[in-house]
Amino acid sequence: MTDILELDTPCVLIDIDRVEANLARAQAYADAHGLRLRPHIKTHKLPRFAKRAMELGAVGITVQKLGEAEVFADAGVAPIFLPYNIIGAAKLARLRALHERIDISVTADSAETIEGLSRAFAASPRPLTVLVECDTGMGRCGVQSPEAALALAGKIANSPGLRFGGLMTYPAAGQVEANAKFLSSAKTLLTQVGLPPETISNGGTPDLWRAHEVEAATEHRPGTYIYMDRSQVARGVGGFEDCALTVLATVVSRPTPDRAIIDAGSKALTSDTLGMDGFGLIEAYPGAVITGLSEEHGTIDLSACAARPAIGEKLRIIPNHACVVSNLFDQVHLISGDHLVETVPVAARGRVD
Amino acid sequence: MTDILELDTPCVLIDIDRVEANLARAQAYADAHGLRLRPHIKTHKLPRFAKRAMELGAVGITVQKLGEAEVFADAGVAPIFLPYNIIGAAKLARLRALHERIDISVTADSAETIEGLSRAFAASPRPLTVLVECDTGMGRCGVQSPEAALALAGKIANSPGLRFGGLMTYPAAGQVEANAKFLSSAKTLLTQVGLPPETISNGGTPDLWRAHEVEAATEHRPGTYIYMDRSQVARGVGGFEDCALTVLATVVSRPTPDRAIIDAGSKALTSDTLGMDGFGLIEAYPGAVITGLSEEHGTIDLSACAARPAIGEKLRIIPNHACVVSNLFDQVHLISGDHLVETVPVAARGRVD
Repeated sequence: MTDILELDTPCVLIDIDRVEANLARAQAYADAHGLRLRPHIKTHKLPRFAKRAMELGAVGITVQKLGEAEVFADAGVAPIFLPYNIIGAAKLARLRALHERIDISVTADSAETIEGLSRAFAASPRPLTVLVECDTGMGRCGVQSPEAALALAGKIANSPGLRFGGLMTYPAAGQVEANAKFLSSAKTLLTQVGLPPETISNGGTPDLWRAHEVEAATEHRPGTYIYMDRSQVARGVGGFEDCALTVLATVVSRPTPDRAIIDAGSKALTSDTLGMDGFGLIEAYPGAVITGLSEEHGTIDLSACAARPAIGEKLRIIPNHACVVSNLFDQVHLISGDHLVETVPVAARGRVD
Repeated sequence: MTDILELDTPCVLIDIDRVEANLARAQAYADAHGLRLRPHIKTHKLPRFAKRAMELGAVGITVQKLGEAEVFADAGVAPIFLPYNIIGAAKLARLRALHERIDISVTADSAETIEGLSRAFAASPRPLTVLVECDTGMGRCGVQSPEAALALAGKIANSPGLRFGGLMTYPAAGQVEANAKFLSSAKTLLTQVGLPPETISNGGTPDLWRAHEVEAATEHRPGTYIYMDRSQVARGVGGFEDCALTVLATVVSRPTPDRAIIDAGSKALTSDTLGMDGFGLIEAYPGAVITGLSEEHGTIDLSACAARPAIGEKLRIIPNHACVVSNLFDQVHLISGDHLVETVPVAARGRVD
C-alpha cells in the first residue's frame, strides 16, 4: 500500500470515506425533509461520485456546461439538469444531440433564450423541459420578480418544442427567507393560472441544512458538500474533519525563519479567497498563513507557529474553494486514511463550453 | 476563412501578429543592451512560440516545472532553465532523465536542495549546472544576502556532480535599484573568491524595459510580455493594442438594465486581480466593469455604459493576468485580425509537477 506521503507534489487527495459520509449525510437530511437531491457535479467532475450519490437516493445530477453533460452522459449518468441559458447555433445543436440520447433539462431567464430553444426543438419528437431561472437575491442570472417568472413560464408553455418544467434558483448565501418568499409567490401565481410548477429547484451548499425552510422547493442542488472546504467550514456548514479534498504540497524553501515556500501556487490552489484571509488551511500547522500565491509558489507566514516545517516536508492543505481545485488537475488520488486507493482522471476537467 | 465571432465560447484567442511584434520588440531591446533573453514559457505553454522566440535571438527558454521541461524537451526546445528547488527522489529522477537528453539547468537556495541535487548527480557523466536563487526584494524563494549567495555558490562548486552557474532572481516589481545593488554586490563577492558568475539571470515583465539598469545581469527572463495583459498595461509596460490574448465570451443574460452575465467565469478568467479593480477589460465596452466571477458566470456592471450589449452578443475580454488563462484551456485559437488561422492544443497546460 502506498502511503500518501510517497506521492509526488503538488497533487490532490480525495478522502473517499469522508466523501461517502458527506453524501450520506446530505441524502439523509433530504429524505427526512421530503426534498429530492440533484447534486451538482462541478465540485468533483467524476462520474463515479455522481453514480454513488444516485445509489444513495439522488434523483439525477446537475451540471453547468454542455461539455460536462456530454462527459456524464457518456458515462451513463442521467437525468441531467443544466441550469444555464443555452444560446447560439453550436450549443443548441449539442443540446439537441444530448436530448436525443438522455433525459436533459435546462433553464431560461429571457425571451431570447426561450425563442432560441424553441427554434432548435420545434421539430423534436420529444419536447425539451425548460425551467425559469429566478434571481432570488444572488444578483446573477434570473428573472427579477415572481411576475416576470410567470410571464416566462407562459412563454415556455406556449413555445413549440418546449415544456414548462418549473422554477430554478441559485440563491444568495444566508438569504433563506427572501429566497423562500420569492419562490412561494411565484408558485402561487403559476398555480393560479394553471401552470403549477412540477419542480422548484433550490441550490447551494452554504444553506444546505436550511433547505427545508424554503417550503416551495421540491429539490436541492448542493455541490461543494461532497468535499467541503475552508470557506464552507467558516460558514459552519461542516467541520474540517468533513473536508475530503486536500492539496498535498512540499516545502521547497525556508528563506527566513518566518517564511516557508511550497510548490503549490495559484495553479494548484487558485486565487479564490471567497472572503477568507489567506489561501487555505495547512492541517499540520493551523497557525501558518498562506499569505500569497504566484503560479507555482505558495508563500507561508510562520510567525505565529511554534513548530515549523522543514525543507522537503509534505503538507496537506484544505483549500478555500474545493471546486476550482478539481478543475486544475488532470487526475486526483482517492485515499482512505493515509493510503492511496486509486488514481483517477478528472473526467470533466476543463470542459469550458 | 472563419471569423472569430463564429467560434463557440468561452474560448481563448491569440493574435499572432501581436505575438510576433511583442517578441521582436523585446528581442530588439535585449540586443540593444547586450542582454541575453531567456523567455519564460509559462505564459503561453506552446512550443511554437518558444521556437519563434529563439529564431529571433533568445538563447533558450525558462520553465517552472519539470512537467513543462518534459513537454518542451519532447518538442525539441532547449536549452531549458528551470529556476526552482528540485526536491525529492521522484523529481530528482525526472531531472536526471532530462539532463541525459537535453541541456537543462536549475537553481537552489538552500544547502538541503544542493545536497539532494549532488546525491542525484554525483554519478552523472556531465555535471548539472546550478545557479543560486537570490531574494532581491520579492519575498519569495532565495537567499537573503549577497554573503549567503557566496556561501551557497561555494557549496555548489564543491559538490560532486554539480557546477556553479551563477545567480538568478525573480525581483519585486518596481524595485530595480535594490535588485541591481544585491546582484552587483554578490557578483563582486563571487569574483573576489574566484567564482565569477557566468550567468546573472534577472526576470519579469513589469520592469522589462528597465532590465538594462540591472548592470550585473547577463540575461532576462520575461514571460507575460509575449501576450501582455490588463495588469501589465496598468503598469505601463505596454498598451491595450499590444495585448495578444483575449477571452471571447457570450452574453447569456441581461437580467436588469445595468447587469449583463457572460459565460466566462473564474474557470475562464481566474480570480486573479493582481491589484486591479474588476476581472478584465471588455474591449467593446471599456466602461463596463466585471464585478464578480463564479465558476461559469461573469457578472458585469453596465451602469457607466451608454451602449450596452444584447443577449447573444460576443465580447472580447483582456484578462488581468494572461498566464493563468492559458492554463485553463486545452486549446487556443490563433488568429490574425478577425480571422481564425489555426486551433492548437496548449501542450504544457496543467503540468503541475
